[in-house]
Amino acid sequence: MTSHGSKTARNGLRLKRLGIDTHDEAVIYMRKDCHICRAEGFTAHARVRVRANGNSIIATLNTTTDGMLAQGQASLSESAWIRLGVAEGDPIYVEHPSPVDSLGHVRAKIYGHTLTDPEMNEILTDIVAGRYSDIQLSSFITACSARGLNQTEVIGLTRAMVDVGKRLDWGVSPIVDKHCVGGLPGNRTTPIIVPIVACCGLMMPKTSSRAITSPAGTADTMETLAPVELSLADLRRVVEKEGGCIAWGGAADLSPVDDILIRVERALDIDSEGQMVASVLSKKAAAGATHLVLDLPIGPTAKVRSRQDAASLGESLLTTAAALDINAHVVETDGTQPVGRGIGPALEAWNVLAVLQNEADAPQDLRERAVLLAGSLLESAGRAAAGEGSAMAGEVLSSGRAWAKFQAICDAQGGMRTPPRSKFQEIIPAPASGSVVRIDNRRLSRAAKLAGAPEDKAAGLVMACRLGQRVTKGEPLVTLHADSKGELNYALDYFRNHPQTIEIGTEDA
Amino acid sequence: MTSHGSKTARNGLRLKRLGIDTHDEAVIYMRKDCHICRAEGFTAHARVRVRANGNSIIATLNTTTDGMLAQGQASLSESAWIRLGVAEGDPIYVEHPSPVDSLGHVRAKIYGHTLTDPEMNEILTDIVAGRYSDIQLSSFITACSARGLNQTEVIGLTRAMVDVGKRLDWGVSPIVDKHCVGGLPGNRTTPIIVPIVACCGLMMPKTSSRAITSPAGTADTMETLAPVELSLADLRRVVEKEGGCIAWGGAADLSPVDDILIRVERALDIDSEGQMVASVLSKKAAAGATHLVLDLPIGPTAKVRSRQDAASLGESLLTTAAALDINAHVVETDGTQPVGRGIGPALEAWNVLAVLQNEADAPQDLRERAVLLAGSLLESAGRAAAGEGSAMAGEVLSSGRAWAKFQAICDAQGGMRTPPRSKFQEIIPAPASGSVVRIDNRRLSRAAKLAGAPEDKAAGLVMACRLGQRVTKGEPLVTLHADSKGELNYALDYFRNHPQTIEIGTEDA
Repeated sequence: MTSHGSKTARNGLRLKRLGIDTHDEAVIYMRKDCHICRAEGFTAHARVRVRANGNSIIATLNTTTDGMLAQGQASLSESAWIRLGVAEGDPIYVEHPSPVDSLGHVRAKIYGHTLTDPEMNEILTDIVAGRYSDIQLSSFITACSARGLNQTEVIGLTRAMVDVGKRLDWGVSPIVDKHCVGGLPGNRTTPIIVPIVACCGLMMPKTSSRAITSPAGTADTMETLAPVELSLADLRRVVEKEGGCIAWGGAADLSPVDDILIRVERALDIDSEGQMVASVLSKKAAAGATHLVLDLPIGPTAKVRSRQDAASLGESLLTTAAALDINAHVVETDGTQPVGRGIGPALEAWNVLAVLQNEADAPQDLRERAVLLAGSLLESAGRAAAGEGSAMAGEVLSSGRAWAKFQAICDAQGGMRTPPRSKFQEIIPAPASGSVVRIDNRRLSRAAKLAGAPEDKAAGLVMACRLGQRVTKGEPLVTLHADSKGELNYALDYFRNHPQTIEIGTEDA
Repeated sequence: MTSHGSKTARNGLRLKRLGIDTHDEAVIYMRKDCHICRAEGFTAHARVRVRANGNSIIATLNTTTDGMLAQGQASLSESAWIRLGVAEGDPIYVEHPSPVDSLGHVRAKIYGHTLTDPEMNEILTDIVAGRYSDIQLSSFITACSARGLNQTEVIGLTRAMVDVGKRLDWGVSPIVDKHCVGGLPGNRTTPIIVPIVACCGLMMPKTSSRAITSPAGTADTMETLAPVELSLADLRRVVEKEGGCIAWGGAADLSPVDDILIRVERALDIDSEGQMVASVLSKKAAAGATHLVLDLPIGPTAKVRSRQDAASLGESLLTTAAALDINAHVVETDGTQPVGRGIGPALEAWNVLAVLQNEADAPQDLRERAVLLAGSLLESAGRAAAGEGSAMAGEVLSSGRAWAKFQAICDAQGGMRTPPRSKFQEIIPAPASGSVVRIDNRRLSRAAKLAGAPEDKAAGLVMACRLGQRVTKGEPLVTLHADSKGELNYALDYFRNHPQTIEIGTEDA
């Protein structure tokens, strides 16, 4: 008995909270001269298993020499602290982690092996349990992008992503959902579609991602209008009360692995087809969707550049959706320029409000797109006859019923908010007179990100021109919005160095 | 003037040393409520540029909340501290980093683009300057492994690796060198070859790597016999005095990017052909080699599994060497079982000493291999007639001259050491009587690593059997060596769970 007790004591350390925020990377801080580091041969950057409160995680070791920690003390990064559910002074136990066997599957994928369903499941189970370091996560994502995923692997990845998270069962059908295969700034139709279809009696428990490589995701925009980090219980309550919600998928723990992968994809600025399909459909399947409309904008600087690419991606989406028992259909849309005027979370939210409130100067392209997609859902879910969905959706919007429903949803999610306004603005003037002949969506997104979006909700830009429009030299093309002078200047410099972001075709008089 | 001064003051923070060791990952610690974080929109895990003392690095931001840092203070991880050459109280300046443009080349590689020489150079210049995060390094390595590198890319990568580091010029020719394309535990011929060829008047400034995925690299083994972290000046002094050295390449700053890549490759446990060729030859070119012998062990559980694979790898090595003006040749050797008896830094060092001292029980396979490779170098560099190199090398070894030279080299490197002995040993007995029919090099390496090698220099294992040998049930097959009970048990468990590590073929009586 004594020997057991002393063994535990020997390996136990008491937690001291240092309050170091490493984002979601789990780090443990231990003294370099700690008896456990010496006994177990742990050195800086080792991966170690940390047990506390009956939970366990794998963390990266950082060692300390300068008295931050007393003998017998250790600390954890804030995300690890929360994940283990520990408190100041709690005992923790540190040991060598078992080898992460699923890394063998990642290596096999690097060298061209096709991943089976059980292999995908093992990988994602380890990822969601925090057993992969950033280096290993990056390798998995890069290998899947470089080698590509075949249709069977995409289905396997999607199913595995659903399996390692929670899944909602609404007990009714249809459950409708909508997704846009990004790449088009300002295309924020979701907060308009949800209230429209909810008004027509369809149930739409919409969960959205935050931005991956774009200046705003629907969750980022919606967060400026209402809380989006709903627990599963809250999400269910909102949807059962109002028929719809517009929430962040990560907080509901639907497809939790997706948020881990998205963080790494964002650092790499990659987002490849198989992962995109799995990311989209795992969220839909986990949310219990039975009917789904997919918006595929096509344009030279959109994510989908040609009708051929749209056909290939559309097929992968439809095949994977069918394997998950989701009735999906694809709507190809114009992707040659941004939708609406704002680019950035709050700036897009103002456009959404203008459409819902039927304001005279509301962006008509945003309105038309939302009506088209909502109409398509109404038809496929049997609420409208073929060809009559758009008319029904348009009528619900014009009548003000969609706006009332949107306010009710925001209230149910925790209360409506006013989107923030930026501290600094600056106009980009037209360098010459002529007509707008080309708009580069990617460069506009880049500029909006340099201005601070999506981290700064009020940052981004507002378009003052559209394709084909005639402009006079000096007239505004774009207004930049930022919360710091540094970021404003960064975006300004970008426009100066990339005049081809918005191209003006000049003619001889 | 005042406004300039105040701007600098506003952005300046004073360094406080917290002594946090993150290995070589650069981390900056700043208060979450610091005015710079707020003004610049920095959040945890952001990548920021840190300037001090006229140097600059890119670091990952960790934010703190709990009073570790006072207002106006910041800290750096130990490696970043050393890299910037700062002292307690020094001012540092923190800003948004410029975009790392070469990441576009990495993305292009992921999607199948072939990397040009200038693109390789841009990537490696950014890596060596610390501009890549672990996630980005991992993506580059994985992309090169998954997509493969064609011969032009391998040459481009090798040249770029040489270009971003220092390069030695000895002012004489020939400069000989040797490399074994790993995967074979115990194959520690370098410390025997260097003194042999140095005795014959050849100059061999040998720099070696530490282990990548193996339980010991030559630098790890040699470090148990003498200091290996020689500065360039020391390395030159040793070689000019004794004709040879056995040093760690990283300390000499030859091909510094290689050590960064190796750390990530180790975390991923991958080591693919193009990167291996570049890693090997960049070190040789940087060390000024003109003549090179390459040992390619072939066996089912060696790195090179077949003669075809050896032919392909050999050709890539020879083509790349030729592009770098190195006269290389390849010696194919037996890779079906470990060389010598020890596996692990110190255990291999004892075998090296036994061969150099002509002890009666010295491992003959290790001796023969060293003599073969040394002989090959003597011939190619014109010191021995064709077919007479091995005899010359054998005579130098038997005469004790190689042993005397080895001691002189160790003295010149800083003083000869006695390799450490492990604290715990345990025998793995033969599970049955019969003969040894198969030995799995990879599993033996894995077991030696679980026992603590290469971090614990004394850890690893000693083979008590060879292929074809008859053993009686209960007789030792292997002796495990470890410095902690935990690691000893870990290796023991591995042998229990993997009886096929050493297979005994039993016969009916």
